[in-house]
Amino acid sequence: MWEQCLDRMLLGFVAVGSLDVTFPDGRTRRYGPAPGAPEAALVLSDPALPRRLVTAPELGLGEAYMDGSLTIAGDDLDGFLALVTRNMAATTGLWWRRLMLAARLARRRFDQANPLHRARANVAHHYDLSGALYDLFLDADRQYSCAYFADPAMTLEAAQAAKKRHIAAKLLIEPGMTVFEIGCGWGGLALSLARDHGARVTAVTLSREQHRYATDRAAAAGLSDRVDFRLIDYRQVTGQFDRIVSVGMFEHVGIPHYREYFDTLHDRLAPDGVALVHTIGRAGPPGATSPWITKYIFPGGYCPSLSEIAAALETSGLFPTDIEVWRLHYAETLKHWHDRFTARLDAARALYDDKFCRMWRFYLKASEHMFRHGGQCVFQYQLARDQRAVPLTRDYLYPAPDTAPRAAG
Amino acid sequence: MWEQCLDRMLLGFVAVGSLDVTFPDGRTRRYGPAPGAPEAALVLSDPALPRRLVTAPELGLGEAYMDGSLTIAGDDLDGFLALVTRNMAATTGLWWRRLMLAARLARRRFDQANPLHRARANVAHHYDLSGALYDLFLDADRQYSCAYFADPAMTLEAAQAAKKRHIAAKLLIEPGMTVFEIGCGWGGLALSLARDHGARVTAVTLSREQHRYATDRAAAAGLSDRVDFRLIDYRQVTGQFDRIVSVGMFEHVGIPHYREYFDTLHDRLAPDGVALVHTIGRAGPPGATSPWITKYIFPGGYCPSLSEIAAALETSGLFPTDIEVWRLHYAETLKHWHDRFTARLDAARALYDDKFCRMWRFYLKASEHMFRHGGQCVFQYQLARDQRAVPLTRDYLYPAPDTAPRAAG
Repeated sequence: MWEQCLDRMLLGFVAVGSLDVTFPDGRTRRYGPAPGAPEAALVLSDPALPRRLVTAPELGLGEAYMDGSLTIAGDDLDGFLALVTRNMAATTGLWWRRLMLAARLARRRFDQANPLHRARANVAHHYDLSGALYDLFLDADRQYSCAYFADPAMTLEAAQAAKKRHIAAKLLIEPGMTVFEIGCGWGGLALSLARDHGARVTAVTLSREQHRYATDRAAAAGLSDRVDFRLIDYRQVTGQFDRIVSVGMFEHVGIPHYREYFDTLHDRLAPDGVALVHTIGRAGPPGATSPWITKYIFPGGYCPSLSEIAAALETSGLFPTDIEVWRLHYAETLKHWHDRFTARLDAARALYDDKFCRMWRFYLKASEHMFRHGGQCVFQYQLARDQRAVPLTRDYLYPAPDTAPRAAG
Repeated sequence: MWEQCLDRMLLGFVAVGSLDVTFPDGRTRRYGPAPGAPEAALVLSDPALPRRLVTAPELGLGEAYMDGSLTIAGDDLDGFLALVTRNMAATTGLWWRRLMLAARLARRRFDQANPLHRARANVAHHYDLSGALYDLFLDADRQYSCAYFADPAMTLEAAQAAKKRHIAAKLLIEPGMTVFEIGCGWGGLALSLARDHGARVTAVTLSREQHRYATDRAAAAGLSDRVDFRLIDYRQVTGQFDRIVSVGMFEHVGIPHYREYFDTLHDRLAPDGVALVHTIGRAGPPGATSPWITKYIFPGGYCPSLSEIAAALETSGLFPTDIEVWRLHYAETLKHWHDRFTARLDAARALYDDKFCRMWRFYLKASEHMFRHGGQCVFQYQLARDQRAVPLTRDYLYPAPDTAPRAAG
C-alpha cells in the first residue's frame, strides 16, 4: 500500500527530467517526461522506506541517504538533488506539497522561537563542531558565508576576499570608526576590517569554539587592542557604533524576532551610521525550513522572503538605502565547499562517522541546488538612520579598475 | 472652542523648529521648542478655519492655502512645508495622528480600487491637463518622473537624460529587442529606447493628451514604425516582450491591484526577459495617501512600502534581481519643477486661475519635502523570470568613464 502511495507521489512529482526508482521488492520504475537515460537512479533497500517517504518526504529522504537505506546510482548526489530541487520548484501546486507547506507554516513560530538559551543551543549544534571539520572545506580565513564571484572562474579564496571588500565598501568604512559585528564566525571579517580598514570592532558570537578561535587569531595578529571578540548575545550589547555589519546571522534570528533584530540595529547605530545585513533569502513567497535542515543542520533557522524582512525593517526607523540580490554566488560557493569536502572524505571520516559525512555532503549539495533551482538567493540590505549617510548613487561601489582602492587589495 | 482645539493640536505637533500662528481673532501664538525667529508664520483669516483644520488637518490646510484663507508670511511655502513635513515625521506617535492613520488605512482599498473605467478617469484628472501647463515646469522631453542627479549640480535636462540612460542600462537593452512600456507619459523614454538603443517599443497610456502628443512626436522623429503608442489599459495588451519598463505608473495601480500588476508583468515578459519597475515608495511602514493629494492631484494613487510591493511581487514568479533605492533625487527634481513653475507664474495664470496655481505650487513643494523629510523615496525593481537573465554583479551599470558607452550619450 505505501509503495503504491509513493508511486503516485512520484508520478506527480517528477514533472521535469526523469528518475529511476528501484523499490525494496526489486521492481524498477521510471518517472518523468524526459526520454533517454534517467538523470538519476535511486535504490530503496529498506521495506519501511516507502511509508517513511510518503509520510515525511524531505526528512525521510535525507535520513535514508544518511543511513544508507537509500542509495543513488554512482553516488551522483549532484544529479539527483538537481533533479529534486527542479521538481520542487515545478510542483508547488501539487495538493500534498500545499498541505505540507501549510502544516509547516503553522508551526514556524514555534520552530523559530529563539530566546537566548535556545539561540545558544542552536548555535552550539552547528558552530561548535570541530574546527578541523570546517578546515576541510572552507578557505583558510574560514569564511562561512556566500563568496562574491565577480567572475565565475575565481578561486574560492579570491571570491571570499572580494566579498569582504564589497562589504567594506558598502559600509563606507574609515579609519578609527567603531564597528559592531553581529555573528562574527571565526573572526575573518572583523580582523580584516581592523587590519585593512583601521576600524575598532566589537564582534559577537554565541559559539564557544568560534569565540576561542577568533580571540586567538586576534592575539596572533597583534589586533587584540582593536578587535574585541565577545561570547555574548547581540541583544546584550549596549552603546552606539558608527557601523554595524551582520553576515549570515539573520538566518538564525527566527521570524518572531525580526522586529527585535532591526530595532536593536537601529538603537545600536549612530545617527549618521551605516549598517549592512547580509542574509540568505528566498525570491518567492514566505515558506518554511526543510524539516531535515531544522533537525540536522540549522535548528531554529529560516531563509526569509523580501516581504518578511521588509515588514520588520520598515517599522524600525532604519532607511533601506540599497538592496542587492546575489544570485548563484552561493551556488558556486557551496559547490566549492562540497567538492573540497568530498576530496577530503578520508580526513572527514577520521573526525566523524560515515553517517555524519553523508549528512554533510547532502547538506552542502542540497543547499547548492536550492540556489540554482529553488529560488534561494542572498540579500544585502544597506541601512541607515539618516538617508544622507550614504552617497546619492551607487557609483562608489564600482570604482574604475585603474583608480580602485580595491585593486590594491 | 475650535481655536482651543487647534491650539492644543499645534502644541503637540510642532515638536521641532518653531511656528507663529495668527488666529482669525488677531491673536498670535508661537509653537515649537526652537528659540529665535520662527521658521514660518501663518495667518488664518477665516473664522471657520480652526474647525476645518482640527477636523481635517491635511485637506483643510491645502484647501485653505488654495483659497487664500490661510497665508504664509513672505509666501514662504518652502520654509512652511519643510517645517510641516519634519514635524509629521517627528509626531507619528500623537494620538490624533494615529487615529487619522487608522481611519485612512481602513478606507485605502476603496480609495485605490482602480478598475478600468476608474483608472481612465483618474488618469484624465491629472494627465489630460493642458500640455502647455506641463511645458511650464518640465524639461523639453516632458520627463514627468524622478531625474537621476549623479551630481546635485546637474541641470534638470542632464539629470533626466541620466535617468533614461540608467534605465536603459538596467534593461540590458539590445538593438531589435521588443519593449513593452507601461505608462509612457508623453513618450520620451519610448522614443529614446527606439532611437538611441534600436528597440521596438509598444507603449501604453490612458491619457488622450499624452497619447496624441507622443504619437505626433514619433511621426515627427520618423520613429512611427518602431514605436507604437497605444491608448489602452496595460491589462489589455497581449503577447510577450523581451523587456518591460514601467516608470512612475505603479503609483496609480492601487493596492488591490498589485498582484494583478506583477502577474501581468510576468505573463507579458519573455522567459529570458528583464523588467524594470520605477516607482515612488515609502521607507517606513504602510500608510495612506494624503486626502488632499487624493482629492486634487492623484485620485486613486498611493506610494507603497517595501513590504507591500514585495508581498505582491514574490507570488508572481518574477525574481527580483536588484532593488535600488533613490533618495533625495526626487526632492531635487521637484525643486527644479517648483522653481520653474514659480518663475513662469504669469504664464500659468494665463492657462488656469490663481487658485489652481496655488494648488500646483503646494503640490510640488509638499512633495519635495516628503522626499527630504517624510521618508519618501524611489524604488527601482529590476525583475526577471530567470535569475540568469542579468549579469552576476552590478558592475555593468557602472562602467569606467573612459570606456562607458554612456559617456558618448
